[in-house]
Amino acid sequence: MNASFDTLLTLVKEKRFHALINALDSMNAVDIAEFLDTLDNTQLLLVFRTLKKDISAEIFSELSQESKSHIVNMATDTELAHIIEELYVDDAVDMLEEMPASIVKRCLKAANPETRALLNQFLKYPEDSAGSIMTAEFIDLRKTMTVEQAIAHIRETGLDKETVYVCYVIDATRKLEGVVTFRDLLFARPDQPLKEIMNTDVIFSGTFDDREETVRKLTRYNFLALPIVDAERRLVGIVTFDDAIDVIEEEATEDFSKMAAITPLSESYMKTGILSLAKSRALWLLLLMISSMITSVILEKYEAAFSAVPLLVSFIPMITGTGGNAGSQSSTMAIRGIALREIALKDWYKVLFKETSISLIVGSTLCIVNFVRLLIMYPGQLGVTIVVTLTMLGTVLIANAIGGILPILAKALGADPAIMAAPLITTFVDALSLLIYFSIASAIL
Amino acid sequence: MNASFDTLLTLVKEKRFHALINALDSMNAVDIAEFLDTLDNTQLLLVFRTLKKDISAEIFSELSQESKSHIVNMATDTELAHIIEELYVDDAVDMLEEMPASIVKRCLKAANPETRALLNQFLKYPEDSAGSIMTAEFIDLRKTMTVEQAIAHIRETGLDKETVYVCYVIDATRKLEGVVTFRDLLFARPDQPLKEIMNTDVIFSGTFDDREETVRKLTRYNFLALPIVDAERRLVGIVTFDDAIDVIEEEATEDFSKMAAITPLSESYMKTGILSLAKSRALWLLLLMISSMITSVILEKYEAAFSAVPLLVSFIPMITGTGGNAGSQSSTMAIRGIALREIALKDWYKVLFKETSISLIVGSTLCIVNFVRLLIMYPGQLGVTIVVTLTMLGTVLIANAIGGILPILAKALGADPAIMAAPLITTFVDALSLLIYFSIASAIL
Repeated sequence: MNASFDTLLTLVKEKRFHALINALDSMNAVDIAEFLDTLDNTQLLLVFRTLKKDISAEIFSELSQESKSHIVNMATDTELAHIIEELYVDDAVDMLEEMPASIVKRCLKAANPETRALLNQFLKYPEDSAGSIMTAEFIDLRKTMTVEQAIAHIRETGLDKETVYVCYVIDATRKLEGVVTFRDLLFARPDQPLKEIMNTDVIFSGTFDDREETVRKLTRYNFLALPIVDAERRLVGIVTFDDAIDVIEEEATEDFSKMAAITPLSESYMKTGILSLAKSRALWLLLLMISSMITSVILEKYEAAFSAVPLLVSFIPMITGTGGNAGSQSSTMAIRGIALREIALKDWYKVLFKETSISLIVGSTLCIVNFVRLLIMYPGQLGVTIVVTLTMLGTVLIANAIGGILPILAKALGADPAIMAAPLITTFVDALSLLIYFSIASAIL
Repeated sequence: MNASFDTLLTLVKEKRFHALINALDSMNAVDIAEFLDTLDNTQLLLVFRTLKKDISAEIFSELSQESKSHIVNMATDTELAHIIEELYVDDAVDMLEEMPASIVKRCLKAANPETRALLNQFLKYPEDSAGSIMTAEFIDLRKTMTVEQAIAHIRETGLDKETVYVCYVIDATRKLEGVVTFRDLLFARPDQPLKEIMNTDVIFSGTFDDREETVRKLTRYNFLALPIVDAERRLVGIVTFDDAIDVIEEEATEDFSKMAAITPLSESYMKTGILSLAKSRALWLLLLMISSMITSVILEKYEAAFSAVPLLVSFIPMITGTGGNAGSQSSTMAIRGIALREIALKDWYKVLFKETSISLIVGSTLCIVNFVRLLIMYPGQLGVTIVVTLTMLGTVLIANAIGGILPILAKALGADPAIMAAPLITTFVDALSLLIYFSIASAIL
């Protein structure tokens, strides 16, 4: 794909717009947007204005935030109105949420009153709610319609809907009564009324439900779309599978970030500036550095011990390292399990039992290998060998227990389990393993 | 949902199967399967056999591997034939892949010759290929058909297809020529031939293409389904959005596991036994423990240094900890960026530049805080304070550079970037930071 970007760029530079439009004609909107994102601001605006009106909004919704901003800044009121009216409400809301207030005002002014009211309503939903990811372009039907009438209605109103494949049956007060897929319509008799074929056990989410829960519901049932209702069970929007996929990717990326002690970024790594990247990491590093002060305090307390047996110092990084790794294994499993809804709060004792059993098996293995190795490499040091081996077992035991339980505890307290990942766990485990190490050393040596 | 599971269980126990079937009738297949998974083996078989034949295959495909095994083991040849014939090929293949050879043989024997040939062909695709996740139940059309004929054809053949919403146009040799969505058909004139409305710039994958690449293609373009072709560009299957979502979740879970030094599990954490869990972790922990031997060697070498200034020991966990955290921040960003295709191999110098710049900003911040803190807490120890502060800067610099580059290097060498995560990076950084620490200490003190 990138290979032909050069050809396209040549056409732009030589201002051969007719040839350019022809070349773009066979391309998918996503690829065209990727190409536009490579252009400089002047070229971008020039090419965007030559695009066919019927596809320009679709391409616009796929552009980077930077390109969108530039186009919106430079657009005339007529152009702005066209973009706002043609975008699906969810894409328009996504765009507006990232724009400065003055631009948002101009966009809302350019929209027609109906769209403006809708946008204002959608902009109010909290960031992580189902309302924030839904769109308003769905097909609604009445249960008294026949299959034939429903198909005619879809033909009439469906052209600018996000999907025509799942339709919702509502009553006179817009309350959700049933769901009908196009497949149902296709295989039913034309004269059958919808109330005979619709599914009345509709699975739905509320506008203020968590967006991750909403998406899990959609993926659990392999739905193309999930209806979103307000507090009175009136249908106000739908979430489609492509939005669901975006949320899944975003939530995973957020978890990866948090688990590495990084404040989640709003753009991709490559598109985020160095200062923003540094800011997303510095605070956490600082916090962790300061909390590791406790290890210094512990070590100072036991200065006498390692002054007497300096060899003890040599094993500090190995012990804290292994403890950190074991803890991060447990916490990663727990965090991912909670995210995928495989581990519930009530499972805490099962997790604790599993982790303790695992730590006994894994810990013993490490101890045996370690014991043999130290026996061979440090022949005269049976005392140290025993101390290190016992510490290893204790550390793995504590690390697994802490790693398995803290994410569940975080969830129980309403915090994000992903915070309880390697960095924080390591800090705890470092301190505890040193305490174990020197307590055992003081007792034995 | 779980609340009513008790009611259902009572019906099962009291053998009130008629009431049970009525209760299940309003439930989604996914929920029914979840209920069946809670039953014991005898109950499971009993209830499964009373299910309506037209939904039993769908419910079967949603069962846990354990329940599937039990049903297949106990099924008569007629029942087996029904299950195999009614399952979508991808679900049948998924099931067979987990079964012992003797059961696979029985299943294949029970299938009709056509299904058997298809299953044998699909079972041959490598585990991570597009072929391994595709299914064979798609709708194919000819370009000479009119819209009306196409819709009639879909009505006739579509009932057991995985999707009727995306149809593929093939020629007499089954080569893929175009794609038509049901939406296109709905808004076209009934007498238009498909060749006028089909999209000939079809985006597809090959059977042997990587499944992750295939899924990225589908999600990039927000497709409901992606066609899969063989080496001769003949259409052999499709991958649908729900399979894509499963792959995305699985790949993310795999990355989470690998990044925590865990061999990815084939089942969920809660469903995996303690021994398997221990096995998935012990080898990596052992490997990392042994590689951390290098830190012991370094510390032994500098025994004189910390014997002279024991205070130096107190800061070891803080330095290695901060280095590990900084390195894990960088490597996580790089690994996730590569997985989402945002970072390409050719971007390595951009990543290196970014990480170096970030480390200068973040490192300086940490140094200043640390310097002030040590000045206050250890008033007479200006030398140690300077050594620790300089080490901190050097460690963060090296940790970020290593963390950013190693995942890209792994990708370049054809290895999985997720291996180059916190645990391995920490081991490298531990050793390097100790070298820096004691080199600076020896020079200054």
